[in-house]
Order: sequence, then C-alpha cells, then structure tokens
Amino acid sequence: MDVQAYFRERIPLVDRVLDDAIPAANTPPQTLHAAMRHILFPGGKRLRPVLAMAAAEAVGAPAQRALPVAAAVELIHTYSLIHDDLPCMDDDAERRGVPAVHVKYGEAVAVLAGDALLAAAFEVISQPADGVEVTALQAACREVARAAGSLALVGGQVDDLVFDSTETDPARIESVHARKSAALIAASIVGGAQLGGADSEMVERMRRCGQAAGVAFQIADDLLDEGEDDPCSLVRAIGVEAARKRSEELLGTALDELEVMGERAEPLRELVRFSVRRDV
Amino acid sequence: MDVQAYFRERIPLVDRVLDDAIPAANTPPQTLHAAMRHILFPGGKRLRPVLAMAAAEAVGAPAQRALPVAAAVELIHTYSLIHDDLPCMDDDAERRGVPAVHVKYGEAVAVLAGDALLAAAFEVISQPADGVEVTALQAACREVARAAGSLALVGGQVDDLVFDSTETDPARIESVHARKSAALIAASIVGGAQLGGADSEMVERMRRCGQAAGVAFQIADDLLDEGEDDPCSLVRAIGVEAARKRSEELLGTALDELEVMGERAEPLRELVRFSVRRDV
Repeated sequence: MDVQAYFRERIPLVDRVLDDAIPAANTPPQTLHAAMRHILFPGGKRLRPVLAMAAAEAVGAPAQRALPVAAAVELIHTYSLIHDDLPCMDDDAERRGVPAVHVKYGEAVAVLAGDALLAAAFEVISQPADGVEVTALQAACREVARAAGSLALVGGQVDDLVFDSTETDPARIESVHARKSAALIAASIVGGAQLGGADSEMVERMRRCGQAAGVAFQIADDLLDEGEDDPCSLVRAIGVEAARKRSEELLGTALDELEVMGERAEPLRELVRFSVRRDV
Repeated sequence: MDVQAYFRERIPLVDRVLDDAIPAANTPPQTLHAAMRHILFPGGKRLRPVLAMAAAEAVGAPAQRALPVAAAVELIHTYSLIHDDLPCMDDDAERRGVPAVHVKYGEAVAVLAGDALLAAAFEVISQPADGVEVTALQAACREVARAAGSLALVGGQVDDLVFDSTETDPARIESVHARKSAALIAASIVGGAQLGGADSEMVERMRRCGQAAGVAFQIADDLLDEGEDDPCSLVRAIGVEAARKRSEELLGTALDELEVMGERAEPLRELVRFSVRRDV
C-alpha cells in the first residue's frame, strides 16, 4: 500500500472541513482568526484525521463518514500545540518552521486562539452529518471531549511539565504518554470507527489499538529527538535499544487488535505502522 | 415570586452535576483538579445554570431536564474567568474573594485548568440524558460550542482587550457585550429550552430574549462598577442615566419575547429582571 498516496488523497477532505470551520482571516476579530489559522494551515502531517478516516474504512464505511471527528481532533491537536508553546509552558518560539502563535500574535491572543480552536472542535462535531446516526456523533463527541480533558491530554501535559528528570520507572513515563499523546490518537481511531458504524466490541478493539499505537508513537518521537533533553522520555530512562524494543512491542499489540478486521483494515494497519516507524 | 428561593432550590441540582463532572481534588494530577475546582466551588451566583433551568420550565419541562446545559455553561463561564484573570489578559490577582487560579497554582496550571474545564463542558453535554431527545442534546451542544467560540465569547474578549478608551459609539460597545457576555447567557436560555423540548419558533424567541437580556446584564454590571475604568463600558461612553435607560429598554425587549409563554415562564421573566436590576 502507498501510504503517501493515502495521505495525499484524504488530507484535502479534512482541510476543506477545517477551512469551513474557522472564519476567514479577514473576519473580525482579524487577529484572532489569523492566529487560529497560523499553524492550522498548511499544518503538519494530519496523522490524527487520516487515522480517523482509515478507522471508518476499517469498519466498512467511506472515509468521508469520519470527517466530523477528523476535523475535531486536528483542531484539538492544534490548540494543544499553541498552548504548549506558551512562555508559561514549554516556551517554544518556533513551530513547524514558523514563529509560534504567541511570538507572532502575543500571548493573550495565543491563549484565546487555542481556546477558540477547542470550542470549534465541538461545534464541528455537533453538526448533523449525512449518513451518520446522531447517537454515533454523540458518542464520538464524548470520546473526543474525554480525550481532551483533565484525565487525558491536559492531565498528561500537567505531569509532563513537572516531570522529574531522575525518574526511570518506564510505567510512569508511559502513563504521561498515554494521556498526553495516546488519548487523542485513540479518540481519533475510536471516533472514526464510531462514525463508521462500529459495534461496541469493535470500538473497544479500536480503543486498545489506539492507546498502544499512541504510546508507541510518542516513544518513536523521542527516538527521533534523541539529542533533545526531555525529562519524560523512555529513551532517556532506559536507552535507545530498549525504547525501540518497547515501541515495537506496543506496535505489535496495536496491530493484533486489528487482525480480525480483514482486508479493509489494511490502510489503518499501514498508518499505525507508519506512525511508529516513520520509514515511508 | 421569591427569586432567592428559586436560586436556593435549583443551585444544589447543578452543583451535584458539576461535582460529578470534575474529578475530586485528590485525583491525580491533584494540582490540576484542585485548580479546576478553586473558583468553581462554591462559585458565584450560578445565574447561567439557573436561567437554563428556568427556560426548560418556561417550555413546560421540569428544571432537571436542563441540567446538561446548566452544567456546561457554568463550566465555560468558569474557564473564561480563569483565562481572563491571567497576567497576559486582565491580570487580576483576586476572584470571588480568593486568589485567582494563576496566583494560587501558577500560570501554566491556570491555562490548563481553564482548558480542561472547557473540555469538561462538552463531556457533560454529550452524555445521554433521561427524557431528552439526542437531537435536542446535539442542538444544545452546538449552541453552547458556538457561544464559546471566536465569533462569540472569545472574539468579544479579544475586542475587549484592545478596546479604544476614546470610542463612544454605543453600537461598538454593545457588539463586545453581545459576544463577550450575552452569547453565553443566550446559549444558557436557548439550550435549556432545547432540552425542555422547545420548537424552533420558541428557540428563536429564547435566543432574542437571551441576547437582549445578556447585553442589559453587562450594562447593569458596568453601572454597579461605576467607579472602575473599563474602556468598553456604555456608562463611560454615554453616562449613567443614558446607560440605565438603555439597559431598561433591552430588558423590555427581552421580556416582550417571553410574553406569549404565559404563567410557566414567570420564573424566567423574574430571573431576567433580576439579572438586570439586581434589586432582590
């Protein structure tokens, strides 16, 4: 399977929804809308939305069916990057090769642009959508809200900010990854499957797959950043080789969950492999 | 009607939902959960949730029916206060007689506590609820998300932050009030009515009522703060008497919309009056 072609064909679908979801940069307040769009377009890999679409396809629905979740998770991912970059958090001046939102638009607008992107995610996912049961949309909305909350994304970020750089217990590091990174990746996959009409057994498989894949993804990220000095990193705690082994093990767990889904889950399997190995 | 008794009887209903929605302060990350609860309990007047409940009653449903919206709007109101108080925004060190969240827990945790409260609002409103149609919940979720977004609450805050203190055009001042304050008040009333089973004509009436009442509420706030020097204030721009007259005019508009609703809308009418006149 050609993973790059898969991304290339599906990214325009979600980009159109994202573009419709955020007012144009010349809509007042212009600074706010420009700031909301600043790192949203052209954006990054769009991994989460493409995972959502592949999950819908894995349960036999067209990719388009997953678009409300696909757009919502990308909006949430983008808000989290903007807030993570703030001076009071990671204090990063650059993001995706451009100035961070707070550098370009000021701190107040960066906080507010993040807030508005988070609200926009829930506006997108609470629209009626063709061919999708309203109860499936409601379940996906709940899934995404939980993944963005204090027991998941935000809680992981809090623990990451104060992480003890002498901590070597892998379980404590993975607990941060599970919340800060994996929860939203799992919600992308679960939400896409829910909009695709998955039954509850399939939803649980998707959740276990997404959690394992999400932690493996974060370890892979740390392996790529080898030089950097992140206190909450398995690479720092147990070394490159053991970390690579652990990410492969988690990848195996993620793929096992998808095994029963047959041929139509092949794109999702490829994406999960790609997200961990980044070798395409 | 005894407005104080109405508040006293309904506040415990929403407080129970809010308490269930936010993990206990000893749930890790403890700092985050303590920060999320810091100004949420005991909280302020709980005007928005009580308006939501009164709107459900105004269309013939029990007050409890409105609880998902009631809790969601209070969580959003609380998040917005935490972010508004940040040093990069209004830089307020106190809120409701206690230290602001960023003063007590630090800036990073204050940003993140606000983020998590916003996410929690959408988790609460996307739960299945007894006696409420799922399409009504979906519509209320959309209403609340829009009210929290860049064309409403957040956009109003952006304009308020940079408001020109020599501006005297009442329409420009009211445009900020309409977004920063009135949108969430209107969403409380509209969402409560939607969960109560209102038809679309009633929903539109509730929206017009809420928008007018919300702007009047903000003018009333500025009248109470007479001494303070808020650039975006009708009191500053046109004086106390003209501002009071305008708030009464808007109150009249709001009450006119409720006239067709008869006896059962009496609590909502009383609350709208109370929120503008504060004389009970």
